[in-house]
Amino acid sequence: MHIPSKFKETNLDTLHKFIQDYPLGTLITSIENLIDADHIPFYLKTQENGQVTLQSHIAKANPLWKTCSEGQEILLIFNGPNTYISPNFYPSKKEAGKAVPTWNYSVVHVRGRIHFKHDSSWIFQLLNDISDVHELSQNIPWSVSDAPEDFTKKLVSAVVGFEVIIENMVGNFKLSQNKTESDYSGVINGLTHSESSADISVAKQMQNNQHAANK
Amino acid sequence: MHIPSKFKETNLDTLHKFIQDYPLGTLITSIENLIDADHIPFYLKTQENGQVTLQSHIAKANPLWKTCSEGQEILLIFNGPNTYISPNFYPSKKEAGKAVPTWNYSVVHVRGRIHFKHDSSWIFQLLNDISDVHELSQNIPWSVSDAPEDFTKKLVSAVVGFEVIIENMVGNFKLSQNKTESDYSGVINGLTHSESSADISVAKQMQNNQHAANK
Repeated sequence: MHIPSKFKETNLDTLHKFIQDYPLGTLITSIENLIDADHIPFYLKTQENGQVTLQSHIAKANPLWKTCSEGQEILLIFNGPNTYISPNFYPSKKEAGKAVPTWNYSVVHVRGRIHFKHDSSWIFQLLNDISDVHELSQNIPWSVSDAPEDFTKKLVSAVVGFEVIIENMVGNFKLSQNKTESDYSGVINGLTHSESSADISVAKQMQNNQHAANK
Repeated sequence: MHIPSKFKETNLDTLHKFIQDYPLGTLITSIENLIDADHIPFYLKTQENGQVTLQSHIAKANPLWKTCSEGQEILLIFNGPNTYISPNFYPSKKEAGKAVPTWNYSVVHVRGRIHFKHDSSWIFQLLNDISDVHELSQNIPWSVSDAPEDFTKKLVSAVVGFEVIIENMVGNFKLSQNKTESDYSGVINGLTHSESSADISVAKQMQNNQHAANK
């Protein structure tokens, strides 16, 4: 991935938070020269020794656990919101007209190796961890223990767990950091007045990123 | 990509519309066994003979146009909104408790071959086409001709165009189609009452998908 230096994000806390906020990963493999990708939610696990790994599971019906070798190198992508940026948003455009459209987005790329987990207690623990995190916003959080035990057991036996041991992680937060302060604010203003939820999400991200940069 | 049959979308009009709605593509290559990906907005071009291709451009600073062979096979992914689905959303959960969380999302995968374009008039036409499409929602749509000609010429010379000749296209619209009508409506209802824009976007997509299925 080509990342201009102004957009490059390497702070691990920021990257981890991004994955927690946008946990649907694109898991990309290249097997016998065929690129393929699956879309799977991930759980960012901090191990007791402080190591951070990414855990998930797939249905046994998904052939990935058979075609992909143990320890194979994979690329994982996490996507934030994205949207079109009109030159109309830049106050500087009014002066000399020197402005063109662009697209703002933010992504995190993780390179690592995949290890499959067939142990039902490992899978059961993951199901608990990932549910607990996502149920936090519910009025009455659902818990794995709410489902009948034989039902859960059957489901656990129908999936294969896996863990990605992270070798490298980088963010490409393309959020107008190459613009002047005035044009940056102009983009936030333009997006905030839009009716598109993607526009508003990108505006929020630009605001957060600006605060982080000013710290 | 593993796609259960209920989620599989092959209608070309639907897939084209999806790409137009979510045009930021993930362009994935595998060069000398290294998987890599760039994130680039695409323009869906209908040629005079009716053939549909995907056009875009990259900065010359991006080495892709040098490392990637002419006509190389690539995988392109377009992502719609996605979100967590709580078992609390299913009315059927109240009866037997047999429910677990899942994640709803929709993606389109395009397999094709990439052809680079160095002709400035080709690039200029693309810049016009892609701007015109995205400026439609602006009160006063910006046009390439609004920028000074020498400025535009300089920009055109700093990018490389490319076109993806499509060989295969498939959608994975994982939007609770495997649920009963009552649980499907429960999910839409649960997501609609959320404060998260991703939830509301997925709810809208489920409504559109339901209408399309009922046609």
